[in-house]
Amino acid sequence: MKPSGIITLTTDFGLTDPYVAMMKGVILSINPTAKIIDITHLIGAGSISQAAAVIQEIYPYFPQGTIHVAVVDPGVGTERRLLALEAKSHFFVGPDNGVFWPVLVNDQNPRLVHLTETKYFLPHVTKTFHGREIFAPVAAHLSLGTPLEGMGIPLKKPVELFLPAPYQDENVLCGQILRVDNFGNLITNVGSRNLENFLRTASPCIEVGKLTIKKMTNTYAESEEGESLALINSSNLLEIAVNMGKASEYIGVDEGEIVGTQVKITRS
Amino acid sequence: MKPSGIITLTTDFGLTDPYVAMMKGVILSINPTAKIIDITHLIGAGSISQAAAVIQEIYPYFPQGTIHVAVVDPGVGTERRLLALEAKSHFFVGPDNGVFWPVLVNDQNPRLVHLTETKYFLPHVTKTFHGREIFAPVAAHLSLGTPLEGMGIPLKKPVELFLPAPYQDENVLCGQILRVDNFGNLITNVGSRNLENFLRTASPCIEVGKLTIKKMTNTYAESEEGESLALINSSNLLEIAVNMGKASEYIGVDEGEIVGTQVKITRS
Amino acid sequence: MKPSGIITLTTDFGLTDPYVAMMKGVILSINPTAKIIDITHLIGAGSISQAAAVIQEIYPYFPQGTIHVAVVDPGVGTERRLLALEAKSHFFVGPDNGVFWPVLVNDQNPRLVHLTETKYFLPHVTKTFHGREIFAPVAAHLSLGTPLEGMGIPLKKPVELFLPAPYQDENVLCGQILRVDNFGNLITNVGSRNLENFLRTASPCIEVGKLTIKKMTNTYAESEEGESLALINSSNLLEIAVNMGKASEYIGVDEGEIVGTQVKITRS
Repeated sequence: MKPSGIITLTTDFGLTDPYVAMMKGVILSINPTAKIIDITHLIGAGSISQAAAVIQEIYPYFPQGTIHVAVVDPGVGTERRLLALEAKSHFFVGPDNGVFWPVLVNDQNPRLVHLTETKYFLPHVTKTFHGREIFAPVAAHLSLGTPLEGMGIPLKKPVELFLPAPYQDENVLCGQILRVDNFGNLITNVGSRNLENFLRTASPCIEVGKLTIKKMTNTYAESEEGESLALINSSNLLEIAVNMGKASEYIGVDEGEIVGTQVKITRS
Repeated sequence: MKPSGIITLTTDFGLTDPYVAMMKGVILSINPTAKIIDITHLIGAGSISQAAAVIQEIYPYFPQGTIHVAVVDPGVGTERRLLALEAKSHFFVGPDNGVFWPVLVNDQNPRLVHLTETKYFLPHVTKTFHGREIFAPVAAHLSLGTPLEGMGIPLKKPVELFLPAPYQDENVLCGQILRVDNFGNLITNVGSRNLENFLRTASPCIEVGKLTIKKMTNTYAESEEGESLALINSSNLLEIAVNMGKASEYIGVDEGEIVGTQVKITRS
Repeated sequence: MKPSGIITLTTDFGLTDPYVAMMKGVILSINPTAKIIDITHLIGAGSISQAAAVIQEIYPYFPQGTIHVAVVDPGVGTERRLLALEAKSHFFVGPDNGVFWPVLVNDQNPRLVHLTETKYFLPHVTKTFHGREIFAPVAAHLSLGTPLEGMGIPLKKPVELFLPAPYQDENVLCGQILRVDNFGNLITNVGSRNLENFLRTASPCIEVGKLTIKKMTNTYAESEEGESLALINSSNLLEIAVNMGKASEYIGVDEGEIVGTQVKITRS
């Protein structure tokens, strides 16, 4: 696959430390024409599942042949493997800790490589910053057209990631909150198809924390200011919001405990 | 007008969620050579006036033909119109909610288009993320030279934005605080010309919250450490600051209520 | 030296205000092909030493001929000088306040210029934003190949910066905490060579706040979850961390007072 020349970066490094900038310097030293796009550097420290969700959401919007680097790597320097792979017509580079699992499970025939060819690394590799010394230079070499296969040995069984799935029986559909976005909206793991299959022609009764919502709306603005609402969002997931407010402040759950909160749906 | 190839982004999406990155992916999928510049993504949620002020301040520093995308869009998915326009030798793309009003009122002959040509949108348009599905692809097509006129129908009466103006009578000039910057400096809506016309040769007495300042200075550093001061800032506006401190912590007004606080100027 | 076409930006402007974007617009108006890389804009307000440390850490990872702009400039508009220099095969542009001192002391023969040629500035120079009106355009002109020497007059004695150095006697090595990173890790000013010379074959006893650590590890993950550890980090400095936790929350020192806290090392 021909590289697009674009390299995306997703990390838990934050925006204050110079770590991300070092990775960019390394990339541009190898490929001065690389186009580097920050996805986010505010992944929760060590939160592999959060990074995995972000990667899965964003990659389809980039051109084929884009290289997505994810450095959420609490096991850096241990025996955890170094991974580069091609799947869904994109490249992915990062630790073999499950961060690319959601992409992998949707591809029939991904090509995975355990990175072992040190000539594609920086000359000095520390035990604590493989993002700079391994993943950044490998991504830069991929962006120049270096074949994936020459960078290491085939990796057969990548580390898997547990992804919480909605639970359903005859009378109830239970999901959970995956994340809270910048607007305080609560993004759940209940897909539009889950919901349609469960509700069919019935109206929903959605309970999350102390909120109860009894109909679906199409937009944020079509309910009253301060009123809670439920809609299918732009990622095809059930989302709980409050018009001109933050749903995260209305559900009666402590902020640190919102992710994972149960979302219970019955027919009303 | 020839596009500069630069697309700027101003949103209230924050820096954690993947929304901005999706817009960048969409732009680069259409125009791989576009140069994307983040203005800020920390506009207060839904604060059209804050975004409008930022757009007005930054556009003159970019090359002519730059495309400025603003996505602060609480009305997304409702009947609010989709706007692209050319004014002051720049392009602007976003919701028709007043966010470009300060630019429009300064142009004799702006060209405005209500975006209706869906071939310039993504194939699937949701009700909740027009930034990704409409504004980003439209900006990308504009950056490739697609004429504005072919993208929709003329829009005659754009939504206006109320901009608070200073009040003046014989003995007093009253403005208000527009924003608090990263240094805790208080930026007011009193322009240098307002102030000169009012004061002429007199010295000022500036009262804001519990601060009183009786002279103008030229730089932050020429007053004592911890002393409050007033100067005309780099945007030609009256600014209240504290040397090596945060004026926002000195005025005796709760942080959430500083914007809008009255600034009263008399002659002393 | 041939410019690389890359310009890096390090400021204390934060991520909300439009100041950084204005600098980028100015740069691209002069050199539309410049590649602008944000290092960080979250330097503490006016913290020259913090910016100096970041610049020193990042520049070696960029291609030779990269231009590094630092705008942490509490003395803007006063008589402090305007500096551009070439050292270690890179360019540096910013106020003459010590921010580039760590780079300068490591170069045998740096070339320093006091910027006086106003034709490389914006036409209108304010007293409060030289980042936009002087440093950004000067960097852009350097990136186009304009010779440094033509931009001003030689500057002989740049402002120096006091850098705290570790103290050592026969029985103790004392350093201090330089910064707390995004993971709550405590980065000290004790270099790997300092430590090796002091310990030789002995084991360390490292005391910082209420933590005591009696061995060195290689990675974050090789100690128990929640256990404190010490390692030599990717910048060759002694770092105190807690596996899957934040050392900054374990040392019993108020967050605002952690930087500067003593790190005492004895042989055990």
